Amino acid sequence: MKSTAIANSNIALVKYWGKRNEKLILPFNSSISMTLDGLYTATTVEFSEKYKQDSLSIDGGHIFGEELSKASVQLDIIRKLAKSTLKGKMVSRSNFPKSAGLASSASGFAALTLAATKALGLHLDRKELGIIARQGSGSACRSLYGGFVEWQKGTLEDGSDSYARQIAPKDHWGELAMVVSVVTAKEKKVKSRAGMAQTVANSPLYKAWLETVEDDLVKARKGIKEMNFTLLGAIAEMNCLKMHCTMVTTTPHIIYWEPQTVSMMKEVMAMREEGLECYFTIDGGPQVKILCLDKDVKKIEARVRENKDVQKVYLCHAGDDAGITKEDLF
Amino acid sequence: MKSTAIANSNIALVKYWGKRNEKLILPFNSSISMTLDGLYTATTVEFSEKYKQDSLSIDGGHIFGEELSKASVQLDIIRKLAKSTLKGKMVSRSNFPKSAGLASSASGFAALTLAATKALGLHLDRKELGIIARQGSGSACRSLYGGFVEWQKGTLEDGSDSYARQIAPKDHWGELAMVVSVVTAKEKKVKSRAGMAQTVANSPLYKAWLETVEDDLVKARKGIKEMNFTLLGAIAEMNCLKMHCTMVTTTPHIIYWEPQTVSMMKEVMAMREEGLECYFTIDGGPQVKILCLDKDVKKIEARVRENKDVQKVYLCHAGDDAGITKEDLF
Repeated sequence: MKSTAIANSNIALVKYWGKRNEKLILPFNSSISMTLDGLYTATTVEFSEKYKQDSLSIDGGHIFGEELSKASVQLDIIRKLAKSTLKGKMVSRSNFPKSAGLASSASGFAALTLAATKALGLHLDRKELGIIARQGSGSACRSLYGGFVEWQKGTLEDGSDSYARQIAPKDHWGELAMVVSVVTAKEKKVKSRAGMAQTVANSPLYKAWLETVEDDLVKARKGIKEMNFTLLGAIAEMNCLKMHCTMVTTTPHIIYWEPQTVSMMKEVMAMREEGLECYFTIDGGPQVKILCLDKDVKKIEARVRENKDVQKVYLCHAGDDAGITKEDLF
Repeated sequence: MKSTAIANSNIALVKYWGKRNEKLILPFNSSISMTLDGLYTATTVEFSEKYKQDSLSIDGGHIFGEELSKASVQLDIIRKLAKSTLKGKMVSRSNFPKSAGLASSASGFAALTLAATKALGLHLDRKELGIIARQGSGSACRSLYGGFVEWQKGTLEDGSDSYARQIAPKDHWGELAMVVSVVTAKEKKVKSRAGMAQTVANSPLYKAWLETVEDDLVKARKGIKEMNFTLLGAIAEMNCLKMHCTMVTTTPHIIYWEPQTVSMMKEVMAMREEGLECYFTIDGGPQVKILCLDKDVKKIEARVRENKDVQKVYLCHAGDDAGITKEDLF
């Protein structure tokens, strides 16, 4: 009745922003991500009669309120499948800051889903796991797989065709690197869930985003399969900019960029002009993630570290599938 | 054969970005601006047989190359009308930095057109002047009028219906103020002319911009006529964000925002949340212009000056029509 799972974070190269179904977390568009080997969440879940209610601890702190309630709803979905009424104790740790645009909810809900289903004795395949994980945090379904992953939006009302599949495993493109620079570790002001609902409701650019994203998906898949860095990088950077355009034109504006974000974007553009090929992507937060190839990674990392605003740099490659581990976080 | 004109700069509240005819400078959309009383350009033009070629001096420096050639082409249009072949000497001074997103080309070409037509003895009305000024720099036609001005895009191929008209004179809304903060006076990397052509050519969001701008125009006119600050401010801010979205999604990206631009935008949003009603607008450059009412202007100006990045602050209200002056800059 106790199990621990580890899941890596993932960074979308073609982004997810906006739900067609808020409750089931069904997206308006498919998205493509790279699972990161360096940034992970480990979660132990135990179900027992000794627990009177669900409890959640993240990085050593006891969590209440909305976050506990979201995790509890996730356990409900799993308990229903397992026909269990036992309460659960959840203990989770990540090796990177949370709510700062490094996709902690993706790795968090992937690990939670895997650990909780295992603890209740369910044997689910990754498609089934994805459908559950998605309902906790959309992008969590992508963190179940390693390498390069597509979350297929699906078209069915019940969400049964909205889950992730792997485009290519991590060894397919070992030279592709992502330099993640943390310019501020403070938690973001507007959570993704609330932000994307506002964007869908009123951004004048949301329609244009949806109209152009299908083409981005085709090119990103091709870029990954053919290991065409220039194609993948350019698509990822433009797709990120388009998403942020829908955000900033939301009322009230959602501006995840901080001053340091803009200087880092310009640094990436400057490096590229100098012949050091790299591309940025930015999620719902201020951090800039730089896509590059191993041959240039040392130079690029050095340039990033020169920036006085940078507090931390993670160097990542495509990571592993989420999985069960023997570690116990209790 | 010698005349001096003064024209104020203007800041668009509904922006102009993109031409349907590059040569005649005919825009894809109409735009609405506020003429500023504090920022002006004065230009003296003399035509004489003693000059062997056109010459241009700006702020004390002799200008050659592309800038001289643009001014010379402008004189050609006027010489053709006046049936003159005389060469001209142009001397121009502005009281604000040029090419930094404070619309120096608008006030510059408005003053040049007015001075040069007068020097050659032409008596043109402001519609005719506007058609000429527009061919030097599109937004220059708006600087011919004081107060609040609309540059009507027109539909004719020859541009004869693309000129400015006044929506309201400067005394109509004396309480409306604009606090212009200069965060860097360095010249911008991408000139508007080249930038907008690239945007029209390849931004995936340009179509969405054009589709939504007509509604902005209707609301901005209404906001000005009814002195509805909340309506005008919200439209101006959103319109500016939409324009910058078309810029940043251009390939290569046109990012006029600097880190200081983002902090100033957030400062405006923070003041508004605190009940100090104000809105930002940003042109092709890093400077943030803050729209507010006189009752709050002292508090807002003080907040802006607290920002360590701010080098200079101009406090402006709606300004006068462009006009002839007796001053001689030679």
